[in-house]
Amino acid sequence: MSAASDATPINQYEYDRADAPDDALRLHLNEHTGGCSPAVATAIAAVTRQSIAKYPDYTAVTQAVANHVGVPPSQVLLTNGLDEGIFAVAIAQFRGGAFSEAVVLEPAFGMYADAVEAVGGRVVPVLPGPELSLDRDAIAQAVTTRTGALFVASPGNPSGVSLTTDEVLWLSSLLPPGALLFLDEAYVEFGGTSFLPHLAAHPNVVIGRTFAKAYGLAGMRAGAVVADSAVAARLRRVVPPYSLNVFVVAALAAALADTQYMADYRRQVVASRDRLYAACDRWGLPYVRSDANFVLVRAGERRTALLDGLQARNIYIRDRDRQPGCTGCVRITTGLLEHTDACIAAMEDILCGKA
Amino acid sequence: MSAASDATPINQYEYDRADAPDDALRLHLNEHTGGCSPAVATAIAAVTRQSIAKYPDYTAVTQAVANHVGVPPSQVLLTNGLDEGIFAVAIAQFRGGAFSEAVVLEPAFGMYADAVEAVGGRVVPVLPGPELSLDRDAIAQAVTTRTGALFVASPGNPSGVSLTTDEVLWLSSLLPPGALLFLDEAYVEFGGTSFLPHLAAHPNVVIGRTFAKAYGLAGMRAGAVVADSAVAARLRRVVPPYSLNVFVVAALAAALADTQYMADYRRQVVASRDRLYAACDRWGLPYVRSDANFVLVRAGERRTALLDGLQARNIYIRDRDRQPGCTGCVRITTGLLEHTDACIAAMEDILCGKA
Repeated sequence: MSAASDATPINQYEYDRADAPDDALRLHLNEHTGGCSPAVATAIAAVTRQSIAKYPDYTAVTQAVANHVGVPPSQVLLTNGLDEGIFAVAIAQFRGGAFSEAVVLEPAFGMYADAVEAVGGRVVPVLPGPELSLDRDAIAQAVTTRTGALFVASPGNPSGVSLTTDEVLWLSSLLPPGALLFLDEAYVEFGGTSFLPHLAAHPNVVIGRTFAKAYGLAGMRAGAVVADSAVAARLRRVVPPYSLNVFVVAALAAALADTQYMADYRRQVVASRDRLYAACDRWGLPYVRSDANFVLVRAGERRTALLDGLQARNIYIRDRDRQPGCTGCVRITTGLLEHTDACIAAMEDILCGKA
Repeated sequence: MSAASDATPINQYEYDRADAPDDALRLHLNEHTGGCSPAVATAIAAVTRQSIAKYPDYTAVTQAVANHVGVPPSQVLLTNGLDEGIFAVAIAQFRGGAFSEAVVLEPAFGMYADAVEAVGGRVVPVLPGPELSLDRDAIAQAVTTRTGALFVASPGNPSGVSLTTDEVLWLSSLLPPGALLFLDEAYVEFGGTSFLPHLAAHPNVVIGRTFAKAYGLAGMRAGAVVADSAVAARLRRVVPPYSLNVFVVAALAAALADTQYMADYRRQVVASRDRLYAACDRWGLPYVRSDANFVLVRAGERRTALLDGLQARNIYIRDRDRQPGCTGCVRITTGLLEHTDACIAAMEDILCGKA
């Protein structure tokens, strides 16, 4: 576990920069480098030794998340990080042998393939079209009666590119009966449009949300799957009953209630992306316009110099060179402005030879 | 999840007393009613907003647990509660289709069957012999080449009865190649003998440990699977890489280091069991002598009166009537002496008609 990375925890087929010193500027895991809301710290401080010793009751926190996303609690499954939600979908879809394949739209968050393979399913990757767009012909060809799940993120990771509602509807319409479209909205607070309003009419869509990114709770392990009630009940069956810890129970509602803290972070993310775009334009580096709190930069032959030069300055960004459609790419978290500025200054040093 | 119970989270085939008011005396989930060590609270207080926002590094906490149990870190897989370890064994053994059945020695912790069924395996329950002993003939008959795992606890839950090392060795010898013996030692701090010293010579045994019970960390979600390095690596593959939260990372070593706090709890558990045995002897209620922090009492026809009468007094114990070999039984946590005394006094009221 110690050497695990967010995208390739198991296969580790790529440049491993997931571990970083404690004092590093960590721009490689899309964490909130400013930390969580002070309201969370206050809520944690109220947790007693007695409640740490008890199995938690999830009624109130589930209701808080249900209110937050605007569905009844029966449609919400809280998970130990969204990773557990991804595993739950994989287990639920591949346990019985009715389905054997999962379609994964590349470039994708590595956990989809890891979860599918962990439970014995086969991954069918679909390469992207030009500019990381959907290749509809390739997708239509990949989906068969063997397809138990299709995994896609909007905004995408590592691309930052969102799907349109029409694209999600089209993906949903492709799937055979009983299959699920796992729509990962881990970064939707930063851009793009949530599919939530359309969920009722399209019960084969399962929406993944996380509180790790926009709410700065990565270390707390808190995600949610939002789905049709019957689907949610099916997923609930394959997740242990005491999955979330007492600190999530105590503090998640406080994190959601501090809308100002989140809005400020989102504002900085938008401005950070713009600053990085402008810098890349100066350097002549192509990039992908992002709806998330990171930007995929096509560093090309300057990729290794950037990764090594930044690491020498104790700044960590993520190599994504080996992901389909991402040759020469690095992914840079664009969060707090001061940290984006520090990264841009260091990149300037490296790229313009002032190192 | 909200109505889930420790033994029957999914099927809920029994008297559901898992939920209890916050101010209740909770003697139904084998929690530490005194709370965790103050050293844990101190460690939690040092967790910063910045570290809450980061994906944790598990190197140090894994080493601390490895030192605690006396194996190298490669043999330790930390899990989000031992429940996740049970699920990991089920996933690893039933993913490929090489095995289809799990043997569960009844009466058993309900999570074994739930996990096996969740991943599409078939549960083969084996009923106990007289006095909840192992029925060796029945077990030998149940284990076949289809058997991917055998689940058993020592001390047992809800029996409190430990296996001898010879019994574990015999179970280990029964299994076909590739199958695993999951030996749940969740309560071993309270009695019985750990199989750990024999693990090296018997790599088909996987030992489950938890910090929920003896260390009072149920709400923190922290368990560990200890296994042969190759087996541990296989299990690690089916668990998400960021499974434990930052509070476990910060506080688990402190909990383990406070040996005096744990020793005091263990001393009270032993004395509590003796007091409950003595009371049961007075009332003419049979019971099973326990190596755990609970006692299974054969309340027979007085079972419902006890459950209802205690609940009316805001004391929760656990109905185990429907578990194999446990007709008429209730399970009572025997932890802090003051809480055991309160429960005994209330039982005295109920059973002796002074209510």
